[in-house]
This record gives sequence, C-alpha cells and structure tokens, in this order.
Amino acid sequence: MGEVLYDLLLADHPQAACRVYAPVGGHRDLLAYLVRRLLENGANSSFVSVAADSAVPVASILERPQNQIGDARRARHRNIPLPRDLYGAQRCNSSGVEFGDRTSLDALLADIRDARPSVEAVPVLDGASRPGIERSVISPIDGKVIGRVGEADEAIASAAMAAAQAGFAAWSTSALDVRSGVLERASDLLEARRGRLIALLQAEGGKTLDDALAELREAVDFCRYYALEARRTLAPRALPGPTGEANELRYRGRGVFVCISPWNFPLSIFLGQITAALVAGNTVVAKPAEQTPLVAAEAVRILHEAGVPASALHLSPGDGKVGAALVADRRVAGVVFTGSTEVGRVIHRALASKDGAIVPLIAETGGINPMIVDATALPEQVTDDVITSAFRSAGQRCSALRLLCLQEDIAEPIVEMIAGAARELKLGDPREPSTHVGPVIDAEAKEKLDRWIADKDREGRVRFRGDRFKPLPGRGTYVPPAIIMLDRARDLRQEVFGPVLHVVRWRAGELDALLEELMGNGYALTLGIHSRIDAVVEHIAGRLPHGNVYVNRSMIGAVVGTQPFGGSGLSGTGPKAGGPNYLERFAAEQVVTINTAAAGGNASLLASDE
Amino acid sequence: MGEVLYDLLLADHPQAACRVYAPVGGHRDLLAYLVRRLLENGANSSFVSVAADSAVPVASILERPQNQIGDARRARHRNIPLPRDLYGAQRCNSSGVEFGDRTSLDALLADIRDARPSVEAVPVLDGASRPGIERSVISPIDGKVIGRVGEADEAIASAAMAAAQAGFAAWSTSALDVRSGVLERASDLLEARRGRLIALLQAEGGKTLDDALAELREAVDFCRYYALEARRTLAPRALPGPTGEANELRYRGRGVFVCISPWNFPLSIFLGQITAALVAGNTVVAKPAEQTPLVAAEAVRILHEAGVPASALHLSPGDGKVGAALVADRRVAGVVFTGSTEVGRVIHRALASKDGAIVPLIAETGGINPMIVDATALPEQVTDDVITSAFRSAGQRCSALRLLCLQEDIAEPIVEMIAGAARELKLGDPREPSTHVGPVIDAEAKEKLDRWIADKDREGRVRFRGDRFKPLPGRGTYVPPAIIMLDRARDLRQEVFGPVLHVVRWRAGELDALLEELMGNGYALTLGIHSRIDAVVEHIAGRLPHGNVYVNRSMIGAVVGTQPFGGSGLSGTGPKAGGPNYLERFAAEQVVTINTAAAGGNASLLASDE
Repeated sequence: MGEVLYDLLLADHPQAACRVYAPVGGHRDLLAYLVRRLLENGANSSFVSVAADSAVPVASILERPQNQIGDARRARHRNIPLPRDLYGAQRCNSSGVEFGDRTSLDALLADIRDARPSVEAVPVLDGASRPGIERSVISPIDGKVIGRVGEADEAIASAAMAAAQAGFAAWSTSALDVRSGVLERASDLLEARRGRLIALLQAEGGKTLDDALAELREAVDFCRYYALEARRTLAPRALPGPTGEANELRYRGRGVFVCISPWNFPLSIFLGQITAALVAGNTVVAKPAEQTPLVAAEAVRILHEAGVPASALHLSPGDGKVGAALVADRRVAGVVFTGSTEVGRVIHRALASKDGAIVPLIAETGGINPMIVDATALPEQVTDDVITSAFRSAGQRCSALRLLCLQEDIAEPIVEMIAGAARELKLGDPREPSTHVGPVIDAEAKEKLDRWIADKDREGRVRFRGDRFKPLPGRGTYVPPAIIMLDRARDLRQEVFGPVLHVVRWRAGELDALLEELMGNGYALTLGIHSRIDAVVEHIAGRLPHGNVYVNRSMIGAVVGTQPFGGSGLSGTGPKAGGPNYLERFAAEQVVTINTAAAGGNASLLASDE
Repeated sequence: MGEVLYDLLLADHPQAACRVYAPVGGHRDLLAYLVRRLLENGANSSFVSVAADSAVPVASILERPQNQIGDARRARHRNIPLPRDLYGAQRCNSSGVEFGDRTSLDALLADIRDARPSVEAVPVLDGASRPGIERSVISPIDGKVIGRVGEADEAIASAAMAAAQAGFAAWSTSALDVRSGVLERASDLLEARRGRLIALLQAEGGKTLDDALAELREAVDFCRYYALEARRTLAPRALPGPTGEANELRYRGRGVFVCISPWNFPLSIFLGQITAALVAGNTVVAKPAEQTPLVAAEAVRILHEAGVPASALHLSPGDGKVGAALVADRRVAGVVFTGSTEVGRVIHRALASKDGAIVPLIAETGGINPMIVDATALPEQVTDDVITSAFRSAGQRCSALRLLCLQEDIAEPIVEMIAGAARELKLGDPREPSTHVGPVIDAEAKEKLDRWIADKDREGRVRFRGDRFKPLPGRGTYVPPAIIMLDRARDLRQEVFGPVLHVVRWRAGELDALLEELMGNGYALTLGIHSRIDAVVEHIAGRLPHGNVYVNRSMIGAVVGTQPFGGSGLSGTGPKAGGPNYLERFAAEQVVTINTAAAGGNASLLASDE
C-alpha cells in the first residue's frame, strides 16, 4: 500500500531507513492481520485517513507528538497514578527498575557489581553470634563455594527459644507505632542495600536479575504493607454497648513465633513471615532454608539495624532437624511455615503431639497449579503467559504453572507455539541480564527433576526438552525446560518443582469433568484461566477453590496488597500473606470491659447533652 | 434529723406510712453513711436545702416529678438508645424481660407453661429422621425422664458427612444475602418460640429462668450478628492495583464443618457455631452434647424452618464416640469445638493424624478464671460480683470465677461478706423464679464436684458450704455452693466446673508474683479485676493474656458484639465468638485477578476523564 510513499522518500533521501514490508503466513494469520489493518486504517485519526484528506494541511500531519504534549507534566494521564503512588498516600510502592532504560539498568548492575555482601551466616541469639556447625555455601550457578554457614544444633535452637521467650514481655508491650515504624525503616534499608541483596539472591539462590529485583521489591512491600495494616487492624477499637460500660477490643502478641521459610523466596517470604509476627507483638526465632542462609543473615542484620531489639529476633540457621527442634519446643506460641505439603503435615503433627495450647500454624504449601484454556483464548497471549508461568524462575515458584489444560480444538497449534517459544529461552548464568532461565536450587533438586523427565521420556510423553537444542551449561545445576504430554489431568498427582510443563487436553462440553479431576488432587493454590467468555471464567473461578485465580494473564508474580497470596486444601491453611486478614492470625484478642459507673455514678450521662 | 417533720406529718395523717430511721453498725460503716448524707444534703437541689430556704415556695418543693417530665417521650434521655436500638439501625438487639415487672414476668411464665416442646431428638440427615440408638433423657432437676434421644452410630455419622459433602456445592454458591437472610429469619423464630425453648433449657439443662432467658437472647444475638457480619466482612472487595487489571478478594465456604458443642449453652453456643459456619458458605454436621440433644433438635428444626436447606445442615446426636467418628472423617473441612481442654487436644491430634489438608480447628476450652481484688475495691460490690460470677448458673459457665485473689489487708472481711451472701442463695428447682442456683448437669458432674469439696474439707480448707445451713433438694443433682481457701494461686491447676470458689490472698507489693503464678497454669479465658486505681487495672490487663477482662463488675454474661468471647493458651485458639474476626476463620479467601486489557486495549483509560 505504501509503495508510492516509499519511492518518493527514497528519491529525496536515498540514505533513509525505510522499507516496504508484506505479511507472510497462512490464511489464519493473514485474516487477523487484515482485520487489524482495517481497524487502524479506518480510524479517523489514522495517518492513511488524514494523508488522503486535502483539507488537512501537511504541517499538521507532520507535527511532532512531542510538540502536542508540550510539557513533561502533560505527558501522563492525570488519573493514572505513578507507580510509587499506586497504594495512596499511606504506603509507598517499592521502586522498580525499567530494564529497557540502559541508564537505570547500568546503575543497578553497578550496584550489584560493587556490593560486597557478607558471606557468613551464623546463629544470632540476643544479637550475639554463636559458632554453630560449619558448612560451605555452594552457588547453584557454577558449584563454587561462596560463603560459610554455622548451623544451629539442638542446644542452640533451645537457647534461641529461651531468648525469644525472655524478650517477649518487653517487645509485646512496645507501642504499635514503634513496631510499625521499625518495619518502615527496614523497608528503606532494603532499598538502600539493593546491590548487596540482589548479589546474594543471585549467587546463593540462582536468581535472574528480574526475579531478584522482583523479590527485593516484594520484601519492601511486605514491610510497608504490614506496618500499615498493623496500624489499621491491630489498634484497639471500641465496641458498642450500654451506657455505663466501656468495651474495647485489643490485640496482643501470642509469644514466640517460629518462622520456617523456603529457599525459593529466601528474602521476601523470610521477611514477610518475620515482619508479620513481629509487628503483631510476637518475638521470633527464624529458621531459613538450609540452602539460603546468607540472604537470611543479611535480612536479620537489616531488621536489627532498623530497630528490632536483639531480644525480639533470633536467627537459627540449619536443616530440617533444627526446624523440628524448634517446633517441638514447649515455648512455641505459633508457627509460620512455607514449604512442602509433607513438611507442613509433619509440623502439624509435632504441634498436636505436645501437651499445651493449640497454637496457630500458618502454612503455605504446595500446588499442582492448572491453567485452563478454552477455544476462545488468543494463542499468542496463552503462549506468552505459559512461558512466563511455567519456565521463568526455572519453575521454582509456588505459583508456577504445572498443568496446562487445553481445549482439544486448539491444543495442537498452541503446544507447537509454546514449544517454539521455549526453544528461544536462554538458559544459563542468571547474573547475565539476557538470561531467561537460571539453575535449579541444588543437585538434589536437579536429580529429582532429571529423573522425572527421563521417566516420562521413556513413556514417550516428552514433547519438548530444551537440551535437545542447546547443551546445558557445563557446571551448576541446570534443568532444561520440558513439556510433557499427559492423558488426563488426574495423572499428575504431585508437585514437580522445576521448569516442567505438563499438558492435557479436554473436550468441549466436558469442562465440568475436568474441574472435578482438578479438584481431586486436593491442591488449591494458583489457577490460570484463558478465555474470552466471562461466563466461563466465572464458572471456573466459582467451582475451583484455588486461592489465586489469574484470568488472561500469567499466573505468577502476586503483588503484596494487590494479590494476597495463598491457597486452601493441601496448598495451605490461610490466611493469605500480604492480605487484610493475615496479621490477626498472629495476634490474640483481648476484650477489656470496664464498669465506668462503678465509682458511684455514670459521669457520661451528666456530660451528655439532653 | 427528721423528727420534727415526722411529728407534723403523723399529727395530720396518723395512717401515713412514715418512719424515723437510724444507721446501725461499726464506725467503718457509719463513716461511709455520713459521707453520703453530707454529699446529698449539701447539694443545692436537695430537699433539706430547699426546705430551709424561705424564698422557695412550698408549692414548688412539693411539685410532682411527673408534672416536670410532663410527657412520656420526655421521660428518657434522648441520647441513650432503647435496648433494642443499642446496636444501631442494622442490627436489632434481642428482647429482654424485666423480671421486676410482674406483667412481663407472668407472660413469660405462661409462655413456658403452655409450651409443648418436642421431647424427641434423632439423627436428621437431609431433612429425614433416622432411628439411632435409643436412650432416655433425664432432667437434672429431679432425675425424671423427660424425653428420648436416638443417638448416631458410626454409620450414621459417616452418612451425615456424605450428605453434608453432597450439599456443599449448592449452599456454598448461594448468595451471601440469602444466607444472611436465613439467619435473620431464624432469630425471629427463636424469639417467637421462647416458651418452648426456655422450657427445654430448664428441663434438660437445669437452667434458672434468668439464665435460660439470657441464653435464648444470646442465640438470637448470634444469628443477627453473624448475618450482619457476613454482609460486612464476607462480601467481595476490590483491591488496589495498576490500571488494566481488576483484583477482587472473595470469600468461599471451606466444605463440611463439624460443630461440637457443650451442654452448658446447649442453644446459644450450639447455634453460634452452626450459624457462623453456615453463613460463611459451609455445610454442617452438628454434634450436640450428649446431655442436651432435645434443645439441639429444636434448634435444628428452627434453622431448617428459617430456610437452611436440608442438605446444608445435618444433626448427629450422641456421645464422644460420635464426635470422634465425625472428626476422623476425611471429608472434614473444619471443626468448631467448645468443651474441655483435654477433648480439644484429642480433636487436634485426630485432625493432625490424617493425611490431607490442615483444616481450621476453632476451639474454646477451659479456664481457671481469676478475679484480682486490691485494697481499694468496694467490698459490697466485690461480694455481689463474686456471688454472681462464681455461684450463679451453678458455676457452670466457661467464664465463671474459679479463683478469687484478695489483697491480704481486706481479705478476711470480704470472705466473710461473700460467705454471708452465699448463705442467702436459694438452691433448688430452677423453674421457680426465686431460685438462685439450680442443679449441676448430671450425676457424674455432681460426684466429681462432691469429691473435690470433700477432699478439700478433709484438708480443712472449706470455709463455707451451703449444705451446712440448708439440706440439698432430695432428688436431682444439686451441689452446694462452696468456698475453699488455698495457700497459693498455683495450688489450683484444674478447672472445677461447678459452684466452687477458691480463694487465695496476696500481699501488697507482690502483685507481679501473683500474676506470674496465674500465667503459670496456662489458661487465659476470663479475668476479673476490682480496683479503683486505673494504673493497677491497666498493669494487670496488660500483663495477663486473658481473653475477656472485666473491671469492677461480674465476669460472666459476655454479650455478642459487645464482649466477643474466648481466650488463648489452654483456653482456646481464637478467634473470639461473637466478634469481628470470627467469620473469616470459617471461610477460605480467593483473589481473582483479571487482565482487563486482554481484549486488546484498556477501555477504562478511554472512559477516564483527562
């Protein structure tokens, strides 16, 4: 259509970068393209439309948009808040980095390069380091030793519980405003130390740059959200009642909370658990994942620096045995745990087996997260969101897509498109900004995943695996993205925690049978839906109990306060982390009723206007 | 002072009821009396003052207050709401009866006398009666058979769970407004059936008239409170986020709730548990206490009549074995339990021993409820509140005072005064309005209490027991109110569930040691404080974790919405029944995130004013 323009332009400016292009593809692709061009060219404001209108002066056609906007302040829509103002005046959103802007990206990379994070983690009780049992910390990126951890034994775990118990009286009676203020200071320190924290998240956790930054932001958001939520929900409130009596609902800390966190979000979940417990007036013994003690130690340093008393927060690194010792302690007033469903059950049993109070167990556990796609979905969008949900973060998010359920009619081309996109993923050192997929956390995880893929390969079910196209990096624990075809949704009974996507097909008219099968596995964490039909979306979201439902988008990256996170059934106990009901679960309620007329009369009646 | 007036009056009207009186007592009593007279007579408005003022015409002195008020509408203070309006326009307070008003009392007694309640309780599954294992229901008042119960066996319990599971899909997707409406209709039915319900509460539960009425009112309040709370807290709510995306937090029922309730509030706690579970979208299998199936059966009939679908609520009467079978069922999505700490622990272990989800256990268990009295307290008020808290309801409330802690300096006269007041209590048939203390629930309870009192008697610790003054009724399970002196607070390690008051003394300056001892028993349900010093009150309430603190008043009779009820530690898990955090615990959270720009553009931007 534009050949005349092309010729004219090149005649005047032979060096101009100008091209004539043509769409190439089948009828199916061409149709969508033509519709788009019709819509664009048919618009009154389109270039094609005004160029042909002799009443429109050329100067106005050629006017630079920059001139129309004029002022930078007019460049944005007044009713769309800037990212930092998304949550209003009371809570500042965490700072992002636009990776497309080279200056911002370079500044971030320089911060990471220049950071000299501490590479030692030891038990910290009442602010004092204890030696612990020494072990090297290995990077999943290349298998190199990057630091040392001193792990707690049972004696240290018990001492940590005693220290936290001793610290409870002072911290639990501190002012709510003081506790919230500490969290807010911590959030600013986290942003100020971004280089150090991202460097550790990458070296120890094997995180890509965008994942590491997103995690840092989540940690910042948790601190600010819980600080604000505590002020909102945990402040004393008057209850209605008859005159002559005052009734007030107060919230109190419960005692010592044991916080057991996972390696896949060693900063944000670690801090989310701890800050929620602290701000509700509890003291904390924190047990980070054995794979990621260095990030945890840095986070604890930041909290102490922000003003958490040494007696209120104690660090007890180690493996599952340390966690078990902490949970079995009679001084436990509550446990918050994120990890596998199996370990959650073990903790539940350990708590129940003790004589003593029935204490809160807040568990966020596994998921077999499905995405349901019907024939009305846009294949390109599905592909994008599947790649992001299943393979980014090497599939090591609780929320990651595990089971893609495609309506039969569109299944084949979509699987083809996903496999094609997966082939383009760059697997490798996550510190390189262009890397899409980093390593899995350790050799044990890699072995388990490799075995799973090999088993399915023997069954002829592997439709795609990345290492058929490019070799895996020679060192480090890398697992190739894989696509595995299953017959039925019920064939997947366990969480496969890595970049492995399982695909099933379902027949039009048999959606409810699929939903039944999906409910049958007992997990209910995240759920993706791709459909253009609102009634289908509502039907699926209404039937399935999954805690986080994502419609026509990826199903990872829950944002604090916007997508409070957590599921039910085998996936967790609730309440949702980063949501409005979380903090109450960490606190005990106390109602104080005062007979205000006991002094001999009801003074409020005398003071009341007739 | 008034002898001249007396003589004048009798001279004119020899038949007038007129007396000269004089205070009689020790200096201590006289002093208080004189201070009161000084204050009264010294007031400008006092009769003594104006009678002596020659400027005041006699007619104005003799004016009838009735004339001053003039109109009935002016007889009350405009800013004091009527009882029914105490909770505002959205929730009507339950109807009380003024026992001092003979007409109201007679109407109530007639309602009870004329009621012909059903005296049969059987398992009800999907609205259909099942035979069950027959047993007689015995009244604690006189040991007579008052009805029959058909108890569930394991097969019926399992069938009830299956029926509730099958009913879940329909009930959980019913509109919130429908579920709240059902509760509101039930509350009106409860008030309309007051005669029938109170008759059963008395015959089966041995309740005095005021206790039975108070319980009925609590049941009504629970229904209305949870109906309103559901509308407030369980409605979907939008969460903040970026443009182009909609985020909504929704609440869903969890599945089948097992509700296990106690005999001491067979109507209100039974209904409180069930209505909370139902309104949150769960279906229910209800297991009432084995002692009180008749009240429970009547309550279930009312709920069904109010519109709870037969498939959403199932009744499974029986003893602990039935409860155990229900809790062990794999279909349980949550348990709400009120009863002993020991049974709470057994339920916790049974739930933890199963493979499957970690489900909510909402337990309200025992207490060793202390009242702390310092030397500034008013002895008469303490005595009144101790009698009410320890002996009314035959001490069979979770909240009842168990351990009175008197500052040494005032201990002896207060104990003397309490013993004197206890001696005046009328023990007997609770259907007689003048009765203060009815029977304990059954022979097993009586035996246990009698043994406890006899043991303490042998140790020379029983300061008072009612049967030393008046014989116990010949039939029925009556236990005399008793006062037992202990050396230290820590000497009471178990809940003694009856009209037995334990007393200890503490020395001025050793309050904190007392608080440590009270915390040592691990229970934290109700706490009474009598003191005129606000700092002491705040110190005690701040240190002790007890869920309900009552200052300068009795410590029983928590009112729904005004005194949300429940404790921590060995006394329960929270959240508080009748409080603002209760319903969320029965529901699961679901966040639905919709990419509203997926259709190809963000329409909200176009619609948004620049």
